[in-house]
Amino acid sequence: MFIEWKPNRPSNRSLHQQIVEWMQQQITRGEWPVATKLPSQRSLADSLGVNRSTIISAIEELIADGLLETKVGSGTFVSNNTWNVLVSSKQPDWKNYVRNGLHEPNLKTIQDINQYETDTAIIRLGTGELSPSLLPTKKIEKTLQTTSFDAHSLGYSEPKGDKGLRHSISDYLKSKGVIASPSSLMIVSGGLQALQLISVGLLQKGSMILHESPSYLNSVHPFQSAGMHLVGLSKQVRESIPTQIKRINGRQKASLFYTVPTFNNPTNTTWTKEERLNLLSICNKEQIPIIEDDVYSDLWFENEPPLPIKSQDTDGLVLYIGSMSKTLSPGLRIGWIAGPITVIERLADIKMQMDYGSSALSQHLVAEWLTSGQYSKHLEWLRYELKVRRDFTLTLLNQYFKGIAEWQIPQGGFYIWLKLCKPIVNPNLFKQAIKENILINPGYIYEPSNNTHLRLSYSYASEEELAYGIQTLSKIIRRLI
Amino acid sequence: MFIEWKPNRPSNRSLHQQIVEWMQQQITRGEWPVATKLPSQRSLADSLGVNRSTIISAIEELIADGLLETKVGSGTFVSNNTWNVLVSSKQPDWKNYVRNGLHEPNLKTIQDINQYETDTAIIRLGTGELSPSLLPTKKIEKTLQTTSFDAHSLGYSEPKGDKGLRHSISDYLKSKGVIASPSSLMIVSGGLQALQLISVGLLQKGSMILHESPSYLNSVHPFQSAGMHLVGLSKQVRESIPTQIKRINGRQKASLFYTVPTFNNPTNTTWTKEERLNLLSICNKEQIPIIEDDVYSDLWFENEPPLPIKSQDTDGLVLYIGSMSKTLSPGLRIGWIAGPITVIERLADIKMQMDYGSSALSQHLVAEWLTSGQYSKHLEWLRYELKVRRDFTLTLLNQYFKGIAEWQIPQGGFYIWLKLCKPIVNPNLFKQAIKENILINPGYIYEPSNNTHLRLSYSYASEEELAYGIQTLSKIIRRLI
Repeated sequence: MFIEWKPNRPSNRSLHQQIVEWMQQQITRGEWPVATKLPSQRSLADSLGVNRSTIISAIEELIADGLLETKVGSGTFVSNNTWNVLVSSKQPDWKNYVRNGLHEPNLKTIQDINQYETDTAIIRLGTGELSPSLLPTKKIEKTLQTTSFDAHSLGYSEPKGDKGLRHSISDYLKSKGVIASPSSLMIVSGGLQALQLISVGLLQKGSMILHESPSYLNSVHPFQSAGMHLVGLSKQVRESIPTQIKRINGRQKASLFYTVPTFNNPTNTTWTKEERLNLLSICNKEQIPIIEDDVYSDLWFENEPPLPIKSQDTDGLVLYIGSMSKTLSPGLRIGWIAGPITVIERLADIKMQMDYGSSALSQHLVAEWLTSGQYSKHLEWLRYELKVRRDFTLTLLNQYFKGIAEWQIPQGGFYIWLKLCKPIVNPNLFKQAIKENILINPGYIYEPSNNTHLRLSYSYASEEELAYGIQTLSKIIRRLI
Repeated sequence: MFIEWKPNRPSNRSLHQQIVEWMQQQITRGEWPVATKLPSQRSLADSLGVNRSTIISAIEELIADGLLETKVGSGTFVSNNTWNVLVSSKQPDWKNYVRNGLHEPNLKTIQDINQYETDTAIIRLGTGELSPSLLPTKKIEKTLQTTSFDAHSLGYSEPKGDKGLRHSISDYLKSKGVIASPSSLMIVSGGLQALQLISVGLLQKGSMILHESPSYLNSVHPFQSAGMHLVGLSKQVRESIPTQIKRINGRQKASLFYTVPTFNNPTNTTWTKEERLNLLSICNKEQIPIIEDDVYSDLWFENEPPLPIKSQDTDGLVLYIGSMSKTLSPGLRIGWIAGPITVIERLADIKMQMDYGSSALSQHLVAEWLTSGQYSKHLEWLRYELKVRRDFTLTLLNQYFKGIAEWQIPQGGFYIWLKLCKPIVNPNLFKQAIKENILINPGYIYEPSNNTHLRLSYSYASEEELAYGIQTLSKIIRRLI
């Protein structure tokens, strides 16, 4: 076998990844058919110009994936299990199915981010997730040690979810001034599923959704994929949000207003009490329901944020979304929606059609953490830890970004919405950072026209990674400016 | 307060339920505004003509729901937490949102079944679910006692799901002759979510889905809600399924063929090896991908069923769906799809947009059960227990249904597809059964024109319930015949 290909360096992909992908392609494209014998490791290392250990690790990955197999004493072969990657001529035109399916794919940048996030060598400066060291893994294990289920709880759940969990969430929400009875609450598998259910359960194709831009909604597609139309409003213009709502709704009836009013994703701004009341008032007058996405509000530092908009909603105007993903663990996949019973019952009926409910194990664990008081204790600790991370990150920004960027001091949540002094936030910056093993969340994910902002997060990377990553990023940016 | 209303007896709803619903309506419709004082329990019992204990239990439920509150010494009041059920004039027109949302609601009968299933007094003769006594609850608790997570496993998961779990599923599938590498597998939250992802990920509006009727697909709406068109084929006609496929596909290109070839839901028929090969061959010729829904095949009694169609698929034609819901526990919400990598990656990207992955706790537990061998041990026990239930149920049918119905002897799975001698399976029969506290799954859920069949299940009800339920059902049916 004569090998022409060589890995590309410098490249934004590790040698290991490049070699794995190349070998996969050789097999997929039928260039290495079933039972092909690979050259020896030494000879592959020579041809490709890499260390033998790099070859070994790539081959090991492909063996684990079932694409290659080793026969003792005779070498490495393309295994006969490769039907699943083979695009033979007899295979149906899957590419066509994939291309034409109803649901929009993730943005390319988001797909790339999802992919790079599986690489443990990369420094994730923008990840909106708690660091593994901030997850109470040992405590969760301890809770599981004493968990006991009644005979029915491992069966299919009620449409709205586990009753015990809904009771504890109802109690927990009272501390936020939100009064929601267990029957006006439903459990979902995280906040994103809540948006998905609202999209297909309550809206028609072509419905207009108002939201505050930049917005998390631009980085996910629950509404766009179902054919809804997003209109971004801005707090950065002279006209207030309520005035913008009134003007736009006068032309075409809006179906919803979506907002993350506390520790916003990505800007980390928080609406004042007055802004909340004004929004509620205009939406009430214009009869536009509000989706309040409130997944960060438990993560305040010095002062508690204003109560949720929902706490002032006496007319059932607000659908309120909460979640355990940003505070306890995203792996649990537990969130909730509170709203008028008729709406909740409709959404619960659709959830039954989508996945028959959320994991009973996860529901049980969250109920236990809420009722035992463990959740509030954990929050106290977590707020402190996040604040330390925020302060550390601010020190780094002062050291390396003074003069080339501006930022606000976060009062809670995960994010710093970093504004660069020059419009250089583009796919090239993303690539330059990847080359240095740094993964950033560029502003254009959240606002297509944005070429000045980055979403930094102090929640995920370790202190060492933050220190190295922010310094390196500043060098890259200074080079481009 | 003058009360005109009285519960309706005989009715298919318990007195307790009727009273709870009536009170909810009084509050919802604003007839009992916030702070309304209810009449005394004694006087309510008199007006409604029921026992005082019935009044007390209804009031207790509404207090738990936050709709009523008790002030010591002064009585029961409509609480001021009722915004969530109040449809005030200021509330947006939620009914309109609910009515016009994109996704179809569940069939009315399915909604009713979901609702009645929450009533513990009802005997469920058709429920496609393991009885609580067949769930290995204690063993699951025991596994959780020694569960430990690495630092990353409680974070957001990879798009395809936990790698460890995918490895163990890949190994487990080998025992079925299905070769699927971990990278050609993805984890889903149960088999229904698999269909949902396939629907919005691979199909266009108006796509034609072929399936074998009667069919599980008529009882759920993942395809219909996305605008796809279902065409039912029948094994009961002269023309074979392959010939029907060829004929129909000649007129309009079919996008998929859906089948549950082993222990079918609802008919419990199993395709022979020859039928499987013929199907694969025609679908290969016609270039129609197959969805093989294989969630019951582990539940055989005397003889193992033929290997899955997927085991013969060398061209990546089959998307193969499996699940833990029918064998280990539906509460875990764990299933999987195996298929060509390009397809799996598309579906995984959409899953990331829908719910960011399945519960890490559930994934961890299933991986543990598969690798430790506990799952196969559990299956041995479960097969025995289900066979005992099948035999018991057949004895009852022989005793009470001889002469008025026909049935086949199940070789595995959950169901008996009972054919009555007269076409009396209609909403009236459903109601008559509910009146006697018996919940049935009528054939028209699975085939709209069907008025002769019931799906009986021996998996859920206890022996006592089966004995009483089947005897009572035979009386009702004899009455109607």
